[in-house]
Amino acid sequence: MDLPTVESQSRAVADAIGAAREQTPLVPSITNAVTIDYVANAQLAVGGSAAMVHMPDEGEFIARAGAAVYLNVGTLMPVLAETMTRTARTLRSCGTPWVVDPVAIGIGAMRTDILLTFGECRPTVVRCNASEAIALARLWGLLDEGAKAGVRGVDSTDEVDAAREAAVAIARHTGGAVAVSGKVDLVTDGTTVARCAGGSELLTYVTGSGCALGGVTAVYAAVADPFTAALAATLMFNYASDRAASVADAPASFKVAFIDELFRASKVPDEVAAKGFALERA
Amino acid sequence: MDLPTVESQSRAVADAIGAAREQTPLVPSITNAVTIDYVANAQLAVGGSAAMVHMPDEGEFIARAGAAVYLNVGTLMPVLAETMTRTARTLRSCGTPWVVDPVAIGIGAMRTDILLTFGECRPTVVRCNASEAIALARLWGLLDEGAKAGVRGVDSTDEVDAAREAAVAIARHTGGAVAVSGKVDLVTDGTTVARCAGGSELLTYVTGSGCALGGVTAVYAAVADPFTAALAATLMFNYASDRAASVADAPASFKVAFIDELFRASKVPDEVAAKGFALERA
Amino acid sequence: MDLPTVESQSRAVADAIGAAREQTPLVPSITNAVTIDYVANAQLAVGGSAAMVHMPDEGEFIARAGAAVYLNVGTLMPVLAETMTRTARTLRSCGTPWVVDPVAIGIGAMRTDILLTFGECRPTVVRCNASEAIALARLWGLLDEGAKAGVRGVDSTDEVDAAREAAVAIARHTGGAVAVSGKVDLVTDGTTVARCAGGSELLTYVTGSGCALGGVTAVYAAVADPFTAALAATLMFNYASDRAASVADAPASFKVAFIDELFRASKVPDEVAAKGFALERA
Repeated sequence: MDLPTVESQSRAVADAIGAAREQTPLVPSITNAVTIDYVANAQLAVGGSAAMVHMPDEGEFIARAGAAVYLNVGTLMPVLAETMTRTARTLRSCGTPWVVDPVAIGIGAMRTDILLTFGECRPTVVRCNASEAIALARLWGLLDEGAKAGVRGVDSTDEVDAAREAAVAIARHTGGAVAVSGKVDLVTDGTTVARCAGGSELLTYVTGSGCALGGVTAVYAAVADPFTAALAATLMFNYASDRAASVADAPASFKVAFIDELFRASKVPDEVAAKGFALERA
Repeated sequence: MDLPTVESQSRAVADAIGAAREQTPLVPSITNAVTIDYVANAQLAVGGSAAMVHMPDEGEFIARAGAAVYLNVGTLMPVLAETMTRTARTLRSCGTPWVVDPVAIGIGAMRTDILLTFGECRPTVVRCNASEAIALARLWGLLDEGAKAGVRGVDSTDEVDAAREAAVAIARHTGGAVAVSGKVDLVTDGTTVARCAGGSELLTYVTGSGCALGGVTAVYAAVADPFTAALAATLMFNYASDRAASVADAPASFKVAFIDELFRASKVPDEVAAKGFALERA
Repeated sequence: MDLPTVESQSRAVADAIGAAREQTPLVPSITNAVTIDYVANAQLAVGGSAAMVHMPDEGEFIARAGAAVYLNVGTLMPVLAETMTRTARTLRSCGTPWVVDPVAIGIGAMRTDILLTFGECRPTVVRCNASEAIALARLWGLLDEGAKAGVRGVDSTDEVDAAREAAVAIARHTGGAVAVSGKVDLVTDGTTVARCAGGSELLTYVTGSGCALGGVTAVYAAVADPFTAALAATLMFNYASDRAASVADAPASFKVAFIDELFRASKVPDEVAAKGFALERA
């Protein structure tokens, strides 16, 4: 299969960014308590419409009513065992695109059970850091024992390149895409690998930037193919965070500037899509 | 019954804004996880004292101890089925003023059950958008089948005028007031209808602005009659958001400026009350 | 026992601030929904690594894996009855330092039960306001009936000096430290009492500033003795909030400036440690 060219892929990214702003897709989430407000505000900033739920029947409702759905397994509560799994199964049967963030994989039995069900239901996009990609690929039985993940709280201890094999394996398993965030970001659909440089380190001082990236990825998954959606969200974050870092040098003013810049970036899709990325065969 | 004049109603609004700042009323909430921090910070900004709970006995405690209470049915969890209904019944029996936001009405069985109980307990103020007003009036059996609500996630798909009949019907049922937010805001106690223009569109890019308006309405319900409380909060939001929009043109810096302006507005009640509104018979 | 000198104690504070930034200790929390994002962002700003959980097995995990843990009893949910108590017992048996905020003590049966268990497990640091210190000392049977607490929502109605006896009694019971926040802050380990002046009143208009202080105290408890940790966090908040108040005069812009200043303050430990405090015998 031929890889897309950078030019054609840039065009697809710009189209996705513009389509989200025009269509205001409804993109509900089941997500963690720490960053739920950041996820919603990031989604609104790029043109999406947000709605967050916790109850099982509401999860099934959003799986049917949403243009795409975001599921993040942070700060689990008892009811979410049922809600997350019923929602994932409904998403699968409806064919609604969905994005998963396996945050804190490895901590607690409920998170493991939910992520195993997600493996069966095959999410459209997985958004994670390097350690989480490796841990998820191992949990789903996609990697040899040789591959080693270092998970530490919600922070990554592995570089993105260490997770290349895991990311490709996950994408081939789901038939969707995987976005691994780091100093260099890696996005793959199992055939093509995109690498994107840039993005401010200040993002790592703002809790939930990865969660917000997942939520924005889901907005684009409502209007584009999985690989383009994951790449569009990643490029938006790199573009907006670079601009925010040019006006703010500390975390809280940076966060404000960053959400503002996401809003502005969503109105200039071509500039964002011109943000550098390279493509290679997986 | 004679309608109030704009002059006398403005005086009542200014008095409510000043009284809240002087008395620092304790106004607890049971509210959703997305915007709980925004609600609390908005309440503090206008002079209120906030406290948020989830447990049933705590709900009864705040119903007795609060000067007013705010109940918002977003992001429901299992325990809230009992907490919301026991709290509403205690509020009713104690006569404590309370404000309800029926956010996401129509999604999930628990939300419907809770809102039916609220209908029996007759909240002091209902704060919602046009679609929610119509859906609530229908749920409570107050509207003919002809009236049609379009609920879509947590966003409104109807204009405020389409909800005039529903709002008046709800206010007559509860004996309190209803505030419907939109480009033009409508506030009614079933006898008088106030229309308020203004308010920045950027509020719609900040998740939870409606929730925060409900929380602030509850602060004023602690020190004023329901119609004055709903109108005071609405005018505060229009005044502060217009000022915020004059210094910020993107959502996150706008949110910061908006909460700052709520704080400043609470110290100039006469200016806020002079914000234009018109009165007509319901 | 000799008291530390201000000079030696300042040195210890500066060392703690520097060590936290260098070591990036993992400091998980079980904390309330209102301010969970503020706690995490404040912890990141001073160099810590945050992770928030709700489930019982996750609580035991963080008690073992964390360099220190923060437990805050606001917005309790049913599962937290088990999670909080199992976590506290594991913290006690592992010897992991932990910080408790008894916010809203006196409201609801579950909160009382959890705080009684905490009394048996003896937290490393208790961070609270004056009313809460008095209420906690009484709940734990450490004060005569003469001592009187006025708890009102989550706000303090007592001055810090009224809580001196209670704070000393709690510290002697736990063998750790107690920090009581107010216009003047009081920190004690049962032998020495530190008083710290300063800190902007605007902090009281930002919901969760006390919670964030608790979370930051836990970061320092990971790298210093309890008294030094509590004093370091208190001095950081006074230093950063004074600086923030010099550039912001309203709550939301103040909050942004305050978190930014925490980040900057963490890089100048000597300046922060030079922030005035006085030491006296308990």
